Amino acid sequence: MTSTDTKAALSPTSALADLRVLELGHFVAAPFCTRLLGDLGADVIKVEPLKGDPVREWGAQVGGRSLWWSVHGRNKRSVSIDVRAPGACELVLGLAAKSDVIVENFRPGHMGKLGLGDAALRAQNPDLVIAHVSGFGQDGPYGKKPAFGVIGEAIGGLRYLSDHAPGTCDLPPVRAGISVGDSVAGLYAAFGIMVALWQRSRAGGTTVDVALSEAVLSLMEGMLPEYSRLGIVRQPTGSRIATAAPSSAYPTADGARVIIAANSDILFAKLCDRMGRPELAADPRFHGNRARVENVEALDAEIDRWSLTFDAATLLKALEEANIPSCKIYTAVDCANDIQFRHRNMVREANDTNFGTILHPGIVPHIVESPGSVRWTGPDVGAHTDAVLTELLGMKAERLAELRERRVIA
Amino acid sequence: MTSTDTKAALSPTSALADLRVLELGHFVAAPFCTRLLGDLGADVIKVEPLKGDPVREWGAQVGGRSLWWSVHGRNKRSVSIDVRAPGACELVLGLAAKSDVIVENFRPGHMGKLGLGDAALRAQNPDLVIAHVSGFGQDGPYGKKPAFGVIGEAIGGLRYLSDHAPGTCDLPPVRAGISVGDSVAGLYAAFGIMVALWQRSRAGGTTVDVALSEAVLSLMEGMLPEYSRLGIVRQPTGSRIATAAPSSAYPTADGARVIIAANSDILFAKLCDRMGRPELAADPRFHGNRARVENVEALDAEIDRWSLTFDAATLLKALEEANIPSCKIYTAVDCANDIQFRHRNMVREANDTNFGTILHPGIVPHIVESPGSVRWTGPDVGAHTDAVLTELLGMKAERLAELRERRVIA
Repeated sequence: MTSTDTKAALSPTSALADLRVLELGHFVAAPFCTRLLGDLGADVIKVEPLKGDPVREWGAQVGGRSLWWSVHGRNKRSVSIDVRAPGACELVLGLAAKSDVIVENFRPGHMGKLGLGDAALRAQNPDLVIAHVSGFGQDGPYGKKPAFGVIGEAIGGLRYLSDHAPGTCDLPPVRAGISVGDSVAGLYAAFGIMVALWQRSRAGGTTVDVALSEAVLSLMEGMLPEYSRLGIVRQPTGSRIATAAPSSAYPTADGARVIIAANSDILFAKLCDRMGRPELAADPRFHGNRARVENVEALDAEIDRWSLTFDAATLLKALEEANIPSCKIYTAVDCANDIQFRHRNMVREANDTNFGTILHPGIVPHIVESPGSVRWTGPDVGAHTDAVLTELLGMKAERLAELRERRVIA
Repeated sequence: MTSTDTKAALSPTSALADLRVLELGHFVAAPFCTRLLGDLGADVIKVEPLKGDPVREWGAQVGGRSLWWSVHGRNKRSVSIDVRAPGACELVLGLAAKSDVIVENFRPGHMGKLGLGDAALRAQNPDLVIAHVSGFGQDGPYGKKPAFGVIGEAIGGLRYLSDHAPGTCDLPPVRAGISVGDSVAGLYAAFGIMVALWQRSRAGGTTVDVALSEAVLSLMEGMLPEYSRLGIVRQPTGSRIATAAPSSAYPTADGARVIIAANSDILFAKLCDRMGRPELAADPRFHGNRARVENVEALDAEIDRWSLTFDAATLLKALEEANIPSCKIYTAVDCANDIQFRHRNMVREANDTNFGTILHPGIVPHIVESPGSVRWTGPDVGAHTDAVLTELLGMKAERLAELRERRVIA
């Protein structure tokens, strides 16, 4: 661990303080899942290759260490084991016997090849909750295909829609800008794990099988029923939303864009008043959400004409006074300095021994009575190997030395 | 309910069959949360205004009914109560007394004005899990500001990044194409609820406070530590990903785009072999992820040149043979017909009395031993008012008639 002592920080009010989670994860999805569990107090043990999780190489670095890792690995104990080495399997099975949950995101079938298939794990621990995260799920014709978040996002239908309206831009659809397919799958896995724990007393060990592509597909609103019933192939709408209006990024006199979301009847009437155009709310083209969506080009042209008469700050002030949902488009600087995020401790300082004091995102969901904490930041590879193997498996120094000598652990 | 009988369908293997959830939600976030709980078997009671949730007007309609609603409202019981009417508060408190969880997404403070603040709810039911979903959280300087998903997405930093690289496109950043801020917040709320239930036996009623903006911020990878330590303001990267390469949408001879995600050392070496350019893997510009990200323009130019020599189908076949993560960019048609989604029942037929047989997304997370079900599709407003008030509050026909006469229920 890098900055804080485990025991002191594991307050009894941490919601998941009595939960132990074994992670055999890499890259984004499974480690994101365990970050959420660790943030709320779970003892997350990350079994990590001797060279470390490849994501330690991702993003901006200081002294060869990734700043993202400070967040992605926080509150976890890193136990470095080469899972392919002879004897490694028994170590992992031993840790599984002492855990409530295991989370992994190898390609389906790989855990079995390592001697860590579901049956082997349950033989050690019948009540173990096993969570698999994969590109396409544990079975089926694509079950063994490799995938990353970008694949899940594209197969789930999200990438196609992250684009300007057809005909307005020659460039390909954009990525959402972060690995949202991975993080949504990780979030679904965390939810599934808690569901499995809820029913554990009745049902014993439960298996959670989350696919990146399916996690994304599940968010796609009316896409499937609309296609199947009406043949509608949902199309990208750029800065607008497909189902409600007005909601878009409107231009200002100083060349900025301001988000205005006045997409309810009441909010739209307020916006018309503020525009000095109360008659628009009664205009049959704009009366009711369906009419507004049908005539969104004409509607947005009216709003553009108005928004362009203000600079962004003046426009935002006017909208705020009228209680109309609106904001600027935040960059990292805006997020870091936002008074609400600061008030809510959702942008917080964390003391990282490698980087000094840096900003971290806070803990979501906020559990009011036991809000969790950043007990320590992303640890170095294997920082807790000896401590965990001693504590959980009763291992002595000679045995640790021998395993290290054989490059089974680091 | 519209298609299936509740009791018959509530199989004992549904993971959350013993959970009752009261929803005072509208639009997307809170109803998405309860959809997840209902999919896994919870008895979700949606308290709905007499005119219905405004989202019933969103998206494509048949006979005045929204197809999206068929999914968004599935597995829920709709109880239509005008919560502002005299006497309505007591009805809702009565239902809360019989529930494990309440989920709401009014503007903070509104529940209190209705007589349904946390203290009033806990007076009825000390163990109640209360989940609030809001734009900015329950307190702080923006606490009472109105918000929708688009606001949370922009404030959380996602919208700025959903764009082409600076200088390549004059249009504003796009929306992800669906209400991802809402659905991610709903998913966090569902996770938080299960965490609260896990500790309920020790801690009594627990409060979960999820903000759209915070839910989005929590996904932003290294954005905050990179800004605070190095002053890096994360920028959009269009079709690429910021932290790893190569991963983008590559052009083909037939004018399509194919996603290739060869962003690990092993996958990149495979890709170079397949391109007939094994020397690229050893090229110092492309050796290791950090070098590839630094030289991504040159790298993608090499891949573009190669991908343009194939049509999309041939290219995808070659990539699949080499086990390199890749896919086309799926539309609704591709999702609906995908053999893996069909195999996994993630694209499934649902029988909706209003629409006939339509396609629904399946149930995520997949809990292997108790996978949940679509017991019925989105019900009409108030379809279960009488049944629920009779079953849970022991209400008689005369009392129901009187409340209906006074327009308290519908």
